[in-house]
Amino acid sequence: MDAILTAVPFIGIAGFVFALVTYFLVIRYPEGNEKMRAIAEKIHIGAMVFLKQEYKIIAVFMAIVVIAIAALLKNPWTAVAYLSGGICSMLAGYVGMLAATRANVRTTQAAKDGGTPLALSVAFNGGSVMGMCVAALGVVGLGFFFLFTKKDPGTAPIIINGFAMGASSIALFARVGGGIYTKSADVGSDLVGKVEAGIPEDDPRNPGVIADNVGDNVGDTAGMGADLFESYVGAVVAAMAIGATMPDTLKVMSLPIFYITIGLIASAIGILSMGILKKLNPQSALRYATYVSGVIFIISGLICTKLLMGSLNHYWSVIAGLVAGALIGVESEYFTSGSPVKKIAHASTSGPAGVVISGIATGFMSTLMPIITICVATAISYYFSGLYGIAIAAVGMLATVGIVMSTDSYGPISDNAGGIAEMSGAGPEIRKITDKLDSLGNTTAAIGKGFAIGSAALTALALFSAFQQTVSTVMGKPMSIDLTSAKVVIGLFIGGTMPFVITALTMEAVGRSANRLVEEIRRQFREIKGLLEGTAEPQIDKCVEIATKGALREMIIPGVLALMAPLIVGFGLGPKALGGFLAGATVVGVLLGIMMCNVGGAWDNAKKWIEEGNLGGKKSDAHKAAVVGDTIGDPFKDTSGPSMNILIKLMSVVALVFAPVIAKFFM
Amino acid sequence: MDAILTAVPFIGIAGFVFALVTYFLVIRYPEGNEKMRAIAEKIHIGAMVFLKQEYKIIAVFMAIVVIAIAALLKNPWTAVAYLSGGICSMLAGYVGMLAATRANVRTTQAAKDGGTPLALSVAFNGGSVMGMCVAALGVVGLGFFFLFTKKDPGTAPIIINGFAMGASSIALFARVGGGIYTKSADVGSDLVGKVEAGIPEDDPRNPGVIADNVGDNVGDTAGMGADLFESYVGAVVAAMAIGATMPDTLKVMSLPIFYITIGLIASAIGILSMGILKKLNPQSALRYATYVSGVIFIISGLICTKLLMGSLNHYWSVIAGLVAGALIGVESEYFTSGSPVKKIAHASTSGPAGVVISGIATGFMSTLMPIITICVATAISYYFSGLYGIAIAAVGMLATVGIVMSTDSYGPISDNAGGIAEMSGAGPEIRKITDKLDSLGNTTAAIGKGFAIGSAALTALALFSAFQQTVSTVMGKPMSIDLTSAKVVIGLFIGGTMPFVITALTMEAVGRSANRLVEEIRRQFREIKGLLEGTAEPQIDKCVEIATKGALREMIIPGVLALMAPLIVGFGLGPKALGGFLAGATVVGVLLGIMMCNVGGAWDNAKKWIEEGNLGGKKSDAHKAAVVGDTIGDPFKDTSGPSMNILIKLMSVVALVFAPVIAKFFM
Repeated sequence: MDAILTAVPFIGIAGFVFALVTYFLVIRYPEGNEKMRAIAEKIHIGAMVFLKQEYKIIAVFMAIVVIAIAALLKNPWTAVAYLSGGICSMLAGYVGMLAATRANVRTTQAAKDGGTPLALSVAFNGGSVMGMCVAALGVVGLGFFFLFTKKDPGTAPIIINGFAMGASSIALFARVGGGIYTKSADVGSDLVGKVEAGIPEDDPRNPGVIADNVGDNVGDTAGMGADLFESYVGAVVAAMAIGATMPDTLKVMSLPIFYITIGLIASAIGILSMGILKKLNPQSALRYATYVSGVIFIISGLICTKLLMGSLNHYWSVIAGLVAGALIGVESEYFTSGSPVKKIAHASTSGPAGVVISGIATGFMSTLMPIITICVATAISYYFSGLYGIAIAAVGMLATVGIVMSTDSYGPISDNAGGIAEMSGAGPEIRKITDKLDSLGNTTAAIGKGFAIGSAALTALALFSAFQQTVSTVMGKPMSIDLTSAKVVIGLFIGGTMPFVITALTMEAVGRSANRLVEEIRRQFREIKGLLEGTAEPQIDKCVEIATKGALREMIIPGVLALMAPLIVGFGLGPKALGGFLAGATVVGVLLGIMMCNVGGAWDNAKKWIEEGNLGGKKSDAHKAAVVGDTIGDPFKDTSGPSMNILIKLMSVVALVFAPVIAKFFM
Repeated sequence: MDAILTAVPFIGIAGFVFALVTYFLVIRYPEGNEKMRAIAEKIHIGAMVFLKQEYKIIAVFMAIVVIAIAALLKNPWTAVAYLSGGICSMLAGYVGMLAATRANVRTTQAAKDGGTPLALSVAFNGGSVMGMCVAALGVVGLGFFFLFTKKDPGTAPIIINGFAMGASSIALFARVGGGIYTKSADVGSDLVGKVEAGIPEDDPRNPGVIADNVGDNVGDTAGMGADLFESYVGAVVAAMAIGATMPDTLKVMSLPIFYITIGLIASAIGILSMGILKKLNPQSALRYATYVSGVIFIISGLICTKLLMGSLNHYWSVIAGLVAGALIGVESEYFTSGSPVKKIAHASTSGPAGVVISGIATGFMSTLMPIITICVATAISYYFSGLYGIAIAAVGMLATVGIVMSTDSYGPISDNAGGIAEMSGAGPEIRKITDKLDSLGNTTAAIGKGFAIGSAALTALALFSAFQQTVSTVMGKPMSIDLTSAKVVIGLFIGGTMPFVITALTMEAVGRSANRLVEEIRRQFREIKGLLEGTAEPQIDKCVEIATKGALREMIIPGVLALMAPLIVGFGLGPKALGGFLAGATVVGVLLGIMMCNVGGAWDNAKKWIEEGNLGGKKSDAHKAAVVGDTIGDPFKDTSGPSMNILIKLMSVVALVFAPVIAKFFM
C-alpha cells in the first residue's frame, strides 16, 4: 500500500501535465481574424486583471490567517498546509481561466472552420483544462500531505485540515467576489445598453460589454472551479479526519485518497473519449463522456475497496453519494427547464408580480426533492459506515469532479464564443452554432449548480461530522450536540440566520456595484460623441476596472463575517453551541441555496421560452414581465445562491481546523 | 392555593362577560345612515358566511382527529380537551368577528359625530371584544382542565395538551384559510378594479370590494385571534407539561395559570383606561393603554411569584419574555416603517426588479435582530429556570394578550371604517379621520405581526422542550436529540424543508384563488350593463362565495400536510428524528416568517411613501414599480408569513400530544 500511496502525488502531477498539454493543444488552434483576436484579448486581459487584483487581496487575507493559525494552533505545518491549499486552488483557477479565455475565440473560429463538432471539441477541451486542474491539484496536495503525515495518522488531520481551509478561503473570494462581478457587469450593461440605449446584447458599442463577458469567466469558470475544488478537498479531509479516529486507521484514511486518484484517471479517460464522441450531437456527447468516467470509476472503485478493505460497506456509501449527485443535477434540470418554467412563463401574462410570486413558490417547492435525496444518501451511507460513511458519500459524489467540471466550464466558453461572434460581426450561421452550444451550456450550468449545492451539502455534513469526532477525541469522551440544551438551540438559531444575512449582504452588493457601472456607462454614452452611432470606441477598460474594484470591495464584509462567525460562537459559547450553529447554517444554507439557484434558472428560461415566440414573444407584455423575473434572478442564481455553497463549507472547515483549540478552551 | 385555583375559571368567565358587555356597549352606538348600514350588513354577512363554512369543514376535521386521539392515546379526556380547545378558539373568533363587523360602521359614524377621540374609542372597544375573548377563554379552559386533573398532576398534561392541540387546529384553518381569503380577495379586486377598470380602491362599483373588506376581518381579526390564542394556550400548556416533571409539581404547574389570570385582569384594566386615554392622540392612547396593563402585570406578577415560589427565579424568565415580545414588535416596526422603507422606495426608481431585490435583501437582513432577541430571552430564562424557563418566558410574553390583541384588532376595524366611509360617500373630512386611524392601524399591525411570530417562536421552543420532557418521562431516561446522530440530522433537514413547502403551497393557493375571482369580476364588468357607469349593482355575493370556497378548498392540502408530517416522521423515524424535525422546522419557519412579514410590510409602506408625493408620487414610474413590490408582498405578509407561526406551533403541539405513544412505540 505504501508504494501506491507514494505514487499518488505523481499521478496527480501527471493529471496536471495532462491539463497543461490540453491547454497547449487548445492554443495551437487558430484564433480567427484580427477583430476577433482584439475582442478576445480584451476579455482575456480583463479576466486576468480581475484574478490578479483578487489574488492580491487574498494574499493579505491569507497572511493574516496564517498568523492566526500559527498563533492559535501552535502548529506551523497547518499553516503550511493552509497556504498550499490556497495556492493549489489559485493555480487551478489561474490555469483554468487562462485556458477558458483562450478557448472562447478559438471556439468561434472552430465553428467557422468545422461546424458544431469542431466547436464543441475546442470548447470542451478548453473547459477540461479547468476540470483536470481542479482534480489533479487536489490529488497532488492531499496525496503529498498524507504521505508527509502518515507516520502519525492520529494527528495527521490537524495538519491536513489546513489544506481544506486554504481551499475554502480562495473559494470564498472567488465565488462571492466573482459572483458580484459577473452580476453587476451583466445587470449594469444590460440596464443601460438594452433598456436605455436600445442596443442588442453583446453589442460592441456598449462600454460594459467586455466587462460582461469577463464576468462569465470570472463567475462561472473561476468561481465554480474554486467552489468544486473546495467541496472535493473538504470531503476528502472530512473522511480522513473521521478515519483518524477509527480502527484500521491507515486504511480508512487512505481510502478517500485512492478514490479521488481513481476518479482523476477516470476523468482523464472520459475527456479523451470526447475525441470520438464529438461526432454525436453535443448533448449526447457530453452525457456519454460523463458516463464513461462514471462507469470506469464505479468498476475500479469496487476493485479498490475489495482489495483494500475486504468488506464492501464503504463502497456502497460511495455509490450512494455518486447517485445522489447525479439525481440532484437532474432535479435542478427539471425545475429550471421542465414544466415549472412554463408555469412561470404563463404567470408572466398577469404582470411582473405574477412572475415573481410564481417563481418564488416554484423555488421554495424545488427544495423538497434534493433534500430528500440528500437525506436518503445520508441514511444509506450512515447505515453502511457510520459518520465516516457520510464523508465517503461526499467523496463518491466528487471523485469524478474532473469530468463534471469540464462539462460545466464548457458552458461559459461557448457563451463567450457567442459574444465574440456577435461583436466581431460573424454571420448568422456561426451565431447559430454558438447559440446551440450556449443553450446546451445553460443546461449543463443548471446541472452543475445543482451538483455544486448538493456536494456542498454533503461536504458540509461530512465536515460537521469530522468536527464532532475531533472535539470528542480532544475531550477524551464523545461530544453530544444535544438539542435539549439551550446553548445548542441558540447556536442553531444564530447559525440559521447566517445564510439570511449573507444573502442580504451579497444581494445589496450586486445592486451597489451595478449602479456604479450604470453611471459610468451612462456617462460614456453621454460624453463620447459618436459612440451610439458606432463611429467612436467605448472606454471598456474603465468599466472592467469599476466592476473589478466594486466586486473586490464588496466581498470583504461577507467574507470576514463568514470566517469570524464560527470562531465567535465557538470561543464565546463553546463547541456544543458551535455544533448547533453549523447544523443551523447548513440546513438553512442548503435550502436557500437550492431555492435561489433554481428560481434564478427558471426565471431565465421562462424569459427565453417567451423569446422563442410563445405567449406573444419578444416585446409582448408577458416578455416584459419575464424580463423583470430574469433580472431579479440574476443575483439569486449567480451571486447569493452559489455563495451559500461556500458559506456552509467554509464555516464548517473553520470549525474543524480550530476544533482542537476550542475544545481545549472549554475543558 | 386551592381556593385561588378554584376561582381561576370564574375569573375567566368574568373576563368573558366583560367582553360581552363591551360588545353590547358597542352595538348600542348608532350605525349611521341607510347606505352605511347596507354596506356594513354585507360585510358582516360575508364574514359570518365564511366563518360558518370554515367551521363546518373544521367540524369534520376535528371529528377525524378526535377519533385518532381516542384510538392512539386511549384517553377520552384528551379528546374532550381537544374539542374544548377548538370550541374556545372558535367561540373567541366568532364573538370577536361579530364585534369587529359591527364596530366598523359605528366607527365611521363616530367619526362623524365626535371626531377622532370618539372614533378611536369605538374602534378600540370593538377590537377589545376579540382581545378579551381570547384572553378570557384561555383562562377558563386551562383553569378548568387543571382543576379537573390536578389530583394527579404527573399525568395531567396528557389531557391538557389536547386543549392546546384543539386551539392549534383552529388556528391552522383560521390563519391559512383566512390568509388565502384575504389576499385572493384583495389581489383579485385590485387587479381588475384598479388596474384594468381604472376605478379607485373601495369603489362600490367593484364587485369584489365587499369580499376585500370581508377579507380584512377574516384574515386580520379572526386569523390573528386564533394565532395568538394558540400561542397563549400553547405556552401555558408547555410550561405545565414541563412543570409536571419537576419537584414542587403543583406549584410550578399553577404558576403559568396564575400569570395568565393576572394578565387577564391587567388587560381589562388597560382596556378600561382607554376611557380616559382616548383624549390623547390615538398613537399615545394605544401605547399608554398597553403600558397600564404591562405595569400592573409586572408588579402583581412579582408579588404572585414571591408568594407562591419564594424565589424570584421564574419571575425573571417572565420578564425576559415580556421584554423580548416588546422588542420584537419594535424591531418589526423599524423594518416596516423606518429607514429601510425609504431605501426600498429609492430602489423603485430603477424599476420593479430593483424594488424586489432591495426588498428581499431587507427582509433577509431583518431576521437578525429578532433572532438575537429570541436567543437572549431563551438564554436568560434557561439560566434562571431551565427548560421550564423557556416556557415561562413564552407565558410572560403572552400573558397580557388581552390588551395586545385589542390594539391589534383595532386596525382592521379602522380599515373597514375607511372602506365604508368611501363606499357610502362620506365627506373627505370623515375619510381623513378614518385614514389617520387606519394608518396607525398599519403600525399596530406591523407590531402585532412581529409579536405574533416572536411569540410563536418562543411557544414552539417551549412546546419542543415539553416534548423532550414528556418523551424522557415515558422512556424513564433523559432523551437526547443529538445532532451527532444521522437520524436527528435527517429529521432536521426534513423539518427545515416543511416551511419552504408550505410557503410554496400557500403562495400558489393565493394565486389560483385570486385568478378565479379575477375571472368573475371581469365577467361582471363585461356582462352587467351599466356597472362601470354606476347605474347597475354588482353581484357581490357571488364574489364572496368564490373567495370563500376558494380559500377553504386551498387550505386543506397544507393543513393536512402540517398535521401529518410530525406523525409520519415520529412513527417512521422515532422520537429523536422527530425532535430534529421540530428544531429544523422551528428555525426555518421563524426565519422565513419574520422575513416574509417584514418585507411585505416594507413594500406596502414604500408604496405608500411614494404615494405621499415622494420620488414623483402617484402614477410615476417609481410608483408603478412600488406597486409591483406591494402586490408580491401581499401573500408574503398576510398568507405565507403568518402561516409559519401556525406551522411551527401546530407541528410541535402534535408531537407533544402524541409523544407518549411515539415514545412507547420505540421502546
